[in-house]
Amino acid sequence: MDIIEMKIKLKESLNEARYIHSINVMEEAEKLALHYKVDAEKAKIAGLLHDCAKNVSKTEEDALIKKYGIVSDDIQKQSRALIHSILGVYIAREEYGVTDEEILNAIYWHTTGRAGMTMLEKIIFVADYIEPGRDFEVARKVRELAYEDLDKSILICADSTIMYLINKGKIIHPYTLETRNDAILTLSRKGIL
Amino acid sequence: MDIIEMKIKLKESLNEARYIHSINVMEEAEKLALHYKVDAEKAKIAGLLHDCAKNVSKTEEDALIKKYGIVSDDIQKQSRALIHSILGVYIAREEYGVTDEEILNAIYWHTTGRAGMTMLEKIIFVADYIEPGRDFEVARKVRELAYEDLDKSILICADSTIMYLINKGKIIHPYTLETRNDAILTLSRKGIL
Repeated sequence: MDIIEMKIKLKESLNEARYIHSINVMEEAEKLALHYKVDAEKAKIAGLLHDCAKNVSKTEEDALIKKYGIVSDDIQKQSRALIHSILGVYIAREEYGVTDEEILNAIYWHTTGRAGMTMLEKIIFVADYIEPGRDFEVARKVRELAYEDLDKSILICADSTIMYLINKGKIIHPYTLETRNDAILTLSRKGIL
Repeated sequence: MDIIEMKIKLKESLNEARYIHSINVMEEAEKLALHYKVDAEKAKIAGLLHDCAKNVSKTEEDALIKKYGIVSDDIQKQSRALIHSILGVYIAREEYGVTDEEILNAIYWHTTGRAGMTMLEKIIFVADYIEPGRDFEVARKVRELAYEDLDKSILICADSTIMYLINKGKIIHPYTLETRNDAILTLSRKGIL
């Protein structure tokens, strides 16, 4: 399936706002990939499809989890915000014909991040946060930093997610913590922090 | 060694402020133990000795880690705030003759907490935060809640530690995250959150 066919299919399975967000993330991911000399085609596809499971209904989600035998931990099971990243990998593979593991991994990790992300994973994680539709203070700050140092921007994204979840009294996935701790260690190694 | 001998020994190995803090935590822990019907003698000893390794010099700390063969993870290794809890267990055992595993575990976990803390561990974790010498806004809030619901107060302590470390740009130990996630799950099970 080429990217035009992917767009047509994606438009049918997402609501309008989510589709526009996906296109925005695709474009932002392409820009970041060109800036950091990462495969821009992979970045475009990962950006376009990162939320392909976002508008799946709860019933359909449960059916797909069963169908694909998706394994998730207790925290992921309780959070639709987390499960869509995992389910997205299966939908991208089965319904959009994506076989590239780097793209699939970037979809898998786009919500929590992880310690030791690849450049493509970092780009999708950040692009999701800074695409032009995201118009809040932290997003503007992250946008400024994203083209200067990806790890600086990742630290702010992850910290901001943690503080948001603390304010909401919600569970925080350990991967999100690993992402910010890893960003601090990486920045320390680079002599920035 | 009885508690009077412990106090004399502790006074010699801590600076004045830290010794006063230790006495305060001992008294607060006893109050909480009586309130929650937990062994008050154990709470007193754990409260008194929780920081017994706090004023050990870096050189002495390194020597003791070697002597006792203390195993710690990468984050604990980098943080003296974390290592003193682990070292405290060895000093309490070797120098103060404490053999009770419940007391030693309460010392071990007093800084980060963990998922599934015992009542004694919870009491020391919270007493450390709310003893009368702690006079800041969050401590006052936690103090109000501590005698109403320990898990509510633990959630605020852990969240406040996480936000403090975020503001400082410092590594957060995964145990601290586990502590607040576990408090949320416990409060949900009790129908409070």
